[in-house]
Amino acid sequence: MPSQPFTGVLVPVLTPFTAAGEPDKARFTGFCRWLLDQGADGLAIFGTTSEANSMSAGERMALLDGLVAAGVPAAKLMPGTGACSMTEAVTLMRHAVGHGCGGVLMLPPFYYKGMPEDGIFAFIAGVIDKVASPALKVYLYHIPPMAVVGFSLNLVGRLIEAYPETVVGLKDSSGDWSNTAALLDRFPGFAVFPGSETFLLDALRKGGAGCITASGNVNVPGIRKVYENWQGPQADALQAEITAVRKAIQAYPMVPALKRIVAHFHNDPDWAAVRPPMVPLSEAQSAALLADLAKLGYSLGERRQPKAA
Amino acid sequence: MPSQPFTGVLVPVLTPFTAAGEPDKARFTGFCRWLLDQGADGLAIFGTTSEANSMSAGERMALLDGLVAAGVPAAKLMPGTGACSMTEAVTLMRHAVGHGCGGVLMLPPFYYKGMPEDGIFAFIAGVIDKVASPALKVYLYHIPPMAVVGFSLNLVGRLIEAYPETVVGLKDSSGDWSNTAALLDRFPGFAVFPGSETFLLDALRKGGAGCITASGNVNVPGIRKVYENWQGPQADALQAEITAVRKAIQAYPMVPALKRIVAHFHNDPDWAAVRPPMVPLSEAQSAALLADLAKLGYSLGERRQPKAA
Repeated sequence: MPSQPFTGVLVPVLTPFTAAGEPDKARFTGFCRWLLDQGADGLAIFGTTSEANSMSAGERMALLDGLVAAGVPAAKLMPGTGACSMTEAVTLMRHAVGHGCGGVLMLPPFYYKGMPEDGIFAFIAGVIDKVASPALKVYLYHIPPMAVVGFSLNLVGRLIEAYPETVVGLKDSSGDWSNTAALLDRFPGFAVFPGSETFLLDALRKGGAGCITASGNVNVPGIRKVYENWQGPQADALQAEITAVRKAIQAYPMVPALKRIVAHFHNDPDWAAVRPPMVPLSEAQSAALLADLAKLGYSLGERRQPKAA
Repeated sequence: MPSQPFTGVLVPVLTPFTAAGEPDKARFTGFCRWLLDQGADGLAIFGTTSEANSMSAGERMALLDGLVAAGVPAAKLMPGTGACSMTEAVTLMRHAVGHGCGGVLMLPPFYYKGMPEDGIFAFIAGVIDKVASPALKVYLYHIPPMAVVGFSLNLVGRLIEAYPETVVGLKDSSGDWSNTAALLDRFPGFAVFPGSETFLLDALRKGGAGCITASGNVNVPGIRKVYENWQGPQADALQAEITAVRKAIQAYPMVPALKRIVAHFHNDPDWAAVRPPMVPLSEAQSAALLADLAKLGYSLGERRQPKAA
């Protein structure tokens, strides 16, 4: 069984943009530090929630350079290396490995639909072969609602068999518990992270590694409580609390809603900015969301301000 | 009404790769020249058929640099500038405009699904505003079978209204004739190109600008005949011939099939190479495809060899 660099609660970190629409390195670094202070076990920067696919490879690498230069521990980082081309995926992955990142989160090639499984296998295998580093730990990123292209159970099995020391886990953002359960049943020792904390307790009870969840951006302490107490008598009650918060947020477009929550609780309105094709919440939506959360008694961690780098 | 840089038969040019999987600049340039010699009215390089999304932005720009350096007329080129990020779309578009390309073929941002129309509008508008060139002519690329994200009639109308001198046309690869017909009805003077020659005659009869079609890579002369004779007595018979060829090819995975045909008729086996996630045709598929084409009396243009640059 391969070594597992990550377990627990990982956050696909929101990316702040300046008023001019550029990635904001200082705010990003400060926010990453704050999430770790809040108890995040790892940071899955450059995922779907991070609007990573609305940034160029160069923008992503510059943000990672900034984090590492500011002393954020690379071992805690699992950058997304999603790209439609092997060329770009290799570039992003070499960069992450060069910085000593604990792992990478890898999308399948997501432009061409209906490709044969052999083609997706060849893409992933080709990238791993080109990076050619024993330090590389790949987490497969299964998110059919966005990527459409996914990783079937059979393909996951082929990749684990071909690269047992490299392909060590998977984030399952299918939203389909039966798929997560099947992965856990079929691949013991393989680190399966559901893509939402709504499945956290169920996953832990079946040997799951934790979760990698968008709402971690605004609820690390609550989600950590479930992780720490999953075998205790309060587990179901704690799970119900975090599920309620999640459901309140996901009643709105997820990334704009999370950014609005951060903007509100960190008293930093610029945080609400998103890059097209996303659209910020309207004032009415924001007010309704915050009211929904207030009804649940929600507050943002210890409400500490994230410090700029 | 804006000036229209393109009409007729445009080819989304296949991209040749070397045995090592790198884009083959010399072979590409030679093939582009050959297509123009065959009568292609324009070359929509870096489309879906070109495996453009399996190349990095840098690889695409290097291929375009090579074409222009070799003297292929930039006015005949409509490079695809498809990217999920505005950053990359702007880079690709500035590069194309800098070379004097006749136009660009622009995908919507295709990673995030279910985005509001306002967000897709903001993406396209933001890119056009950043490129900020009167020389820029944008053709929208509507291909929901691959991109999933598309351009609704309403969004097309908004973009034409906002950028009447810039957003001058659309390639409709929906495969849905009713959508092509609706575009032609609703936006007279806007250059609508169906994405398959199977709709060429129907489109021309309703004021269409021509077609931009994958099978142009192997059948420019046949398709040009329909374009030149669409008002003549042979039009329907000529259309039936090219439709039969198209249907024979698209019974197989399209891009690998086209590359195999080129490899065969140009006596250049390396042409069959594709990048993952595509997979080449098997020998059995290739033999069956070539037999199907032989039954139709198909031959590749004048069977002239494409010259290397």
